[in-house]
Amino acid sequence: MHEIAKLFESRLNIANVGSEIFARSLEFQGAQVVQVDWKIPCGGKDELISILTKLRTRETRVATKGQTLQDLIDEANSRALEIVNASHPTVVGIGRALDVIPGMETNLILHAGPPVDWENMCGPMKGAVMGALIYEGMASDEKEAASLAASGKIRFEPCHHHSAVGPMAGIISPSMPVWIVENKHSGNKAYCTLNEGLGKVLRYGAYSDEVIKKLKWMEEVLAPVLGEAIQIHGDIDLRTLIAQALQMGDEGHNRNKAGTSLLIRELAPAIALVKADERTKSEVLNFMHSNDHFFLNLTMPAGKSSLDPISDLRHCSLVTAMARNGTEFGIRVSGLGDRWFTAPAPRVKGLYFPGFSDEDANPDIGDSTICETYGIGGFAMAGAPAIVEFVGGKPSDAIAFTLSMYEITVGESSIYRIPLLGFRGTPTGIDIIKVVEKGIVPAINTGIAHKDAGIGQIGAGLVEPPLKCFEDAFKAFYTRLTKEMNL
Amino acid sequence: MHEIAKLFESRLNIANVGSEIFARSLEFQGAQVVQVDWKIPCGGKDELISILTKLRTRETRVATKGQTLQDLIDEANSRALEIVNASHPTVVGIGRALDVIPGMETNLILHAGPPVDWENMCGPMKGAVMGALIYEGMASDEKEAASLAASGKIRFEPCHHHSAVGPMAGIISPSMPVWIVENKHSGNKAYCTLNEGLGKVLRYGAYSDEVIKKLKWMEEVLAPVLGEAIQIHGDIDLRTLIAQALQMGDEGHNRNKAGTSLLIRELAPAIALVKADERTKSEVLNFMHSNDHFFLNLTMPAGKSSLDPISDLRHCSLVTAMARNGTEFGIRVSGLGDRWFTAPAPRVKGLYFPGFSDEDANPDIGDSTICETYGIGGFAMAGAPAIVEFVGGKPSDAIAFTLSMYEITVGESSIYRIPLLGFRGTPTGIDIIKVVEKGIVPAINTGIAHKDAGIGQIGAGLVEPPLKCFEDAFKAFYTRLTKEMNL
Repeated sequence: MHEIAKLFESRLNIANVGSEIFARSLEFQGAQVVQVDWKIPCGGKDELISILTKLRTRETRVATKGQTLQDLIDEANSRALEIVNASHPTVVGIGRALDVIPGMETNLILHAGPPVDWENMCGPMKGAVMGALIYEGMASDEKEAASLAASGKIRFEPCHHHSAVGPMAGIISPSMPVWIVENKHSGNKAYCTLNEGLGKVLRYGAYSDEVIKKLKWMEEVLAPVLGEAIQIHGDIDLRTLIAQALQMGDEGHNRNKAGTSLLIRELAPAIALVKADERTKSEVLNFMHSNDHFFLNLTMPAGKSSLDPISDLRHCSLVTAMARNGTEFGIRVSGLGDRWFTAPAPRVKGLYFPGFSDEDANPDIGDSTICETYGIGGFAMAGAPAIVEFVGGKPSDAIAFTLSMYEITVGESSIYRIPLLGFRGTPTGIDIIKVVEKGIVPAINTGIAHKDAGIGQIGAGLVEPPLKCFEDAFKAFYTRLTKEMNL
Repeated sequence: MHEIAKLFESRLNIANVGSEIFARSLEFQGAQVVQVDWKIPCGGKDELISILTKLRTRETRVATKGQTLQDLIDEANSRALEIVNASHPTVVGIGRALDVIPGMETNLILHAGPPVDWENMCGPMKGAVMGALIYEGMASDEKEAASLAASGKIRFEPCHHHSAVGPMAGIISPSMPVWIVENKHSGNKAYCTLNEGLGKVLRYGAYSDEVIKKLKWMEEVLAPVLGEAIQIHGDIDLRTLIAQALQMGDEGHNRNKAGTSLLIRELAPAIALVKADERTKSEVLNFMHSNDHFFLNLTMPAGKSSLDPISDLRHCSLVTAMARNGTEFGIRVSGLGDRWFTAPAPRVKGLYFPGFSDEDANPDIGDSTICETYGIGGFAMAGAPAIVEFVGGKPSDAIAFTLSMYEITVGESSIYRIPLLGFRGTPTGIDIIKVVEKGIVPAINTGIAHKDAGIGQIGAGLVEPPLKCFEDAFKAFYTRLTKEMNL
C-alpha cells in the first residue's frame, strides 16, 4: 500500500491552516480538526510581498553589521516604544489658542485630520468653521461666514501641524481656550480645546446661537476658573489619571466616565478656592459633571504629546498619527516625518441615536484616533467591556479587539494595564509593516456626526481605517530606506 | 463475551463524576475523560441530607396543594428576591445618631456583628469602644474608658438591631453623624457612620488623639457641609450610583474608587453652594477625595435598607445579614427572623501592609458583609478584577468567585450588572439550603484589623465564613417549618 494511502487507514490528527472552510467540511465528515489562523501575507499583493522579503533577507546587507533591514527597523521601533513609554503627559495650564499654540494666527483656523481646503471639507467641518467665524466675531451669520471661509482670507491647517489635536471637526480658532499638556519627559507640549459636552456642539458641526453662547461661556467663565484651579492645584499628572481610568472601565476615547470623574475629584478642592462667586464655581463643577466626555480632550493631547517625540525617527516604522478630516483618513509614520498618507474616509458601523440612520452619517472624522495611535481607545477596549452599549457589539468583542491589536503593535504600554488580561500593558506602537503583512488594521471606536452642517452627533460605532494608507506608507518607507542607505 | 467485557474492547467515552483523582488516573492511561463537578450533598452529613430529602419529597405533603416544602420555600424566595430587586436605596440626609437611629440612647454603643459583651470583645472593637467613649467626653483616657465600658453603665448592642451597619468594629456612639438612607420602595431607613479614611481610624480600633480629633471634625465640619449639600442637591439615588460603579471596576466592598468618584462629582456642585467658607468646602472635598473607601459607608446601608424588608418572611431561606464582631461570625435568615446563628470568626487570608503578618491579624470583623448579602462585594468581583491587587489572587480568581456564587443564590440582580459576563446581574439572595447542600460558602473580601486595640488596618484579603452558621440555621429553619405546618 502506498504510504500516503496508509495515512487514511489510521485515525487522522488534522490541522487546517488558513481558510476555515476546509476545516468545517472535514468536521462535517466526522473528523476532529485543529484550525490554525493564517492569512497570506500582504493580502497576496506581489509588490508588497517583494518589499517584505527584501526587508528580511540577509542578502540586502546593511553597512558592516550583517543585519537585515528589518533588524535596523526593529531597533528603531524598540527605541521609539521606549520613548512613548517614558513620556509623561501632564496638564500645566489653560491658555488662549492665539497666545499658546505655536504658529497660531488671527486668520488661521485649525481642523482635524490631514490637510483639506474649504471646498473639499465635509458638512460638519464646514459647519464648525462657520460657527468658529461667528464665535470669533468675524462673521455675523452662516452666510457671511461661508463666504468669508471661501474668500481665501482665512487659512486652514491641520491641528496636527501645530502640536494640537481636536475631536470630530477639531476646529480651533484663535480665541478658544485650550488645555496645555506638557510631556515632562521630552519637554514638548500639546494642545486641545475644552470639551463642549453633548447635544448641539461645534465639534459635530452645529453652530446655532446656543452653541456660540456656550463657547463664549467656556472662554469667559469655564477656562478662567479651571486655569486658576490648576494653578492652585499644581500640575495634573495625566499618566496616572489615564492609568487609573483604564482600570475603571474607560478606554479613553469613547468612554471617559472614569477619567472625567477622577479629574473632577482632583480639581474640585482647588475649584472651591478659586476667586469666583459660589454660583460660578457650582456651574463649572456641574458643567464637567454633566459630560462624561470631558476627559477625552485630555487623553487626546496626552497621546499627541507622547507621540510627537517619535515623529521623525530614522528607520522607525511606527505610526505617529492617524487622523480624519471627514473627507480623508490620513496617517503619518515616524521614519517618514510629516508626510500624510491618505485615502477616502471610511464609514462608521455603529449604533444611532433615535431618528437617525446610516444614510445621515458623515464619514469618519476627527483627531481622536490619536488615542489608538497611543495604545488606548479601541486598543484598550478589553478594559472597557461596557462600551459596547455605546458603540455596538458584545463584551467579548471588546476583548477580541484588544487581543488582535497585539498582532500589529511593536510592544505593550508599561503604564496602561488591563486587569482582565492579567494586568498586561495595552498594545502600543502601531507598526505599518505588521499592519501590511497581516492585513489587520487598527481597531478604532468613534462618534458619528451628521453629514450636514449644523446638526451634530447622531451615534457612535466602530470604524476600519483604509488599508491603502498603510500600504502606501509601507512602499514610501521602503523607498526612503533604500535611498538613505544607498541600496 | 459478557456484555460489560465488550465495553472494554471498544473506545471508551468516559465521564467521571466527583473526585478528580479517578479522571487523572484514567487520563494517565491514555483515556479521554470528561470531568463532571459533583460533591456529595451536605458534605455527607446524615442529619442534613435527611432534612434535604424531606424538603424535596412529595410524601411530606403540604396543605392541600400537593407541593413539597421546597416548592413553598422556592415561592417565598422568589418573592423575597423581587423585593430586594425592587428596593431603591436613596440618601436622604445626614443626622446625629442619637436623633435619628431608632432606639439610640445616650448610654448605648452600637457595634458590628452579632451581640457581644465587653469581656468577649476583640482588641480592635475594645479599642474603638474606648475611642468612642473618649470622643463622647464620657472618659478622658484609655484607662477611664476601659473601666467605664466594663462598669455595666454602658449598654452594647449590634448595629443590625437598630437598622444600622458599621464597617470593621462598626462602633456608633450617640453624637456621631450618620448617613440616612431610605429605601424608597419599602419606605424603611438604614444608617451608617461616615467613612473616616485610611491610616489610624476608630473602625480599626485606633483611638489616639488624632483619631478623636478627626471624628470631631467630621461631626462639626464634614457632616454639616454634606448635610446642607444633600439638601441643595436633593435625594441621591444610590441604586444608580452603585450600578454605575460596578461597571467601573468597583465591587462595592473593598473597592469603592468609582463610587467615591461618582459621589464627589454628584455632590461637588452643591457643596460649592453651601454656606461655609471656601477653605472649609475645599477641605471637605479634599477629605472625600483622599479616601477611596468613602463610598463603602453608602453601599453598606444601601444593602441594609434593601434587605431589611425581607428580614422576616415566612418560609424564606434567604440570608438577610452576615456580620462579624471580631469574635464571632453570625448570620440571620429571613424565615427565622432576628435570630443569630454564630460560630467563631474565621481568619482572613490576604495581603498585609509592610511590617505586618498573619500573626498580627484579628479574626474577621465588621458588618460590611452586608455587601455580599446584598449581591455585591465578593459576589461582584468579576466586575472588579483590579481588586486582586488589594486582596490577593489573580484576576481570573475574581471571575471564578462571582461565577461560583450563582450556585448558592436564588437569582440575579436586575439592577447590578457585570459587563464582562454579558451584563448578567450579580448573584443575589444567598439561600442557606443551597449553601448547605453544595457546601459552598459565600465569597467575602474584607479588610484586616490588627488584633490589638489602638493600631488599625494591616491588610486586606478573602475570608470564608464558617459553614456551621449555615448548617445550624438550616436545621433551625426545618424545625420551625415543620412546627408551623404541624408536620
